[in-house]
Amino acid sequence: MTLCSSVDFIQPVLHGYFRSSCSWRVRIAFALKGMEYDQVPVNLIKDGGQQLTEDYKTLNPMQQVPAVEIDGVTLSQSLAVIQYIDETRPEPRLLPLDPKKRAQVRMISDLIASGIQPLQNLHVIQKIGAEKVQWAQYFINRGFEALEPLLKQTAGKYCVGDEISMADICLVPQVYNAERFQVNMSLYPTIQRLNQTLMKIDAFQVSHPSCQPDTPVELRA
Amino acid sequence: MTLCSSVDFIQPVLHGYFRSSCSWRVRIAFALKGMEYDQVPVNLIKDGGQQLTEDYKTLNPMQQVPAVEIDGVTLSQSLAVIQYIDETRPEPRLLPLDPKKRAQVRMISDLIASGIQPLQNLHVIQKIGAEKVQWAQYFINRGFEALEPLLKQTAGKYCVGDEISMADICLVPQVYNAERFQVNMSLYPTIQRLNQTLMKIDAFQVSHPSCQPDTPVELRA
Repeated sequence: MTLCSSVDFIQPVLHGYFRSSCSWRVRIAFALKGMEYDQVPVNLIKDGGQQLTEDYKTLNPMQQVPAVEIDGVTLSQSLAVIQYIDETRPEPRLLPLDPKKRAQVRMISDLIASGIQPLQNLHVIQKIGAEKVQWAQYFINRGFEALEPLLKQTAGKYCVGDEISMADICLVPQVYNAERFQVNMSLYPTIQRLNQTLMKIDAFQVSHPSCQPDTPVELRA
Repeated sequence: MTLCSSVDFIQPVLHGYFRSSCSWRVRIAFALKGMEYDQVPVNLIKDGGQQLTEDYKTLNPMQQVPAVEIDGVTLSQSLAVIQYIDETRPEPRLLPLDPKKRAQVRMISDLIASGIQPLQNLHVIQKIGAEKVQWAQYFINRGFEALEPLLKQTAGKYCVGDEISMADICLVPQVYNAERFQVNMSLYPTIQRLNQTLMKIDAFQVSHPSCQPDTPVELRA
């Protein structure tokens, strides 16, 4: 008997930050799939930003979190990671089977992942400077004003029908960011209702920024 | 015999703008698939921006292009549209079969679609004002500095191996934007080489901003 050479049995490693919404997306996906994984904290603030080291750059050349080592490859971009997990660990599925529903899930996910989050992430608001809170509020409100009527059409119990999907994985961390920037969530009753429903689910709770290995004591739930 | 009630035989309608890189992505996908489609121009400049009308908002609540009517549904977010087309019209495929290669394609596509384009699109640079060219150059350079080493690892003839994929569909319009903002492309030899190879392909040529129905005469190739 030879030793198994497959790397598939090594537990995935998530390089992330407790408060990063993109890291949280990946943590939710792992939790929904019931996958064990290791976390290596990358502190985006300390030492001027640990994501800026040359070592980390080899894991994610954009010098952002997350980066995920899984099945012998290193991946970045949270939606690419989530869809890889979904295509290699099919149950429970994170995208519906029906192509039109899959498209709706991706449309909502991308509205958040391309249309909102990149405009209010740490690097961008640092560059904006003094006006950063107004800037972040403006782009989150703009995105939520589009998302609210879209979700009214697609939502059942969750963002698209009654199955949890990648869209829900994107929604909850974005609402968390909105609350950090004091966006008035009462303007978005559908988003708020979905967020409340989702936050009752174990996978969303255990992955929450308030209870990660790198969460500072004063921010722990 | 009853009339066929399927909407699948109605030609898709692309609501887009000749110069929008996200509209161009969808045009490339249609061209690669050999699909006929109708174009409805949405002029992002004229009348203060035709994407801002209440009518257009029902097609794309983000008030951005593109919006695509296809198979009885209306979709926005270009990567959601492209993957819908790919999942319903399988040949030639726009994502590889191998899950790790698919993840690489999505990682590169999202690096561009979430990491670069949203930060240099029209709405954002209008909000930046006087510093808009430097702002756009900064974020395109930042993205390309990450993309160049990534592509060195994944590329063959095209972005991921020797098959054209969604990553190539994202790359070429982003290079076009970079050139508009006078980014020094000689810093990125792999990106430049891939772009040159891709621009020899018919699907990338016929979909080019210089030859669309709404391209102004003075900008026509």
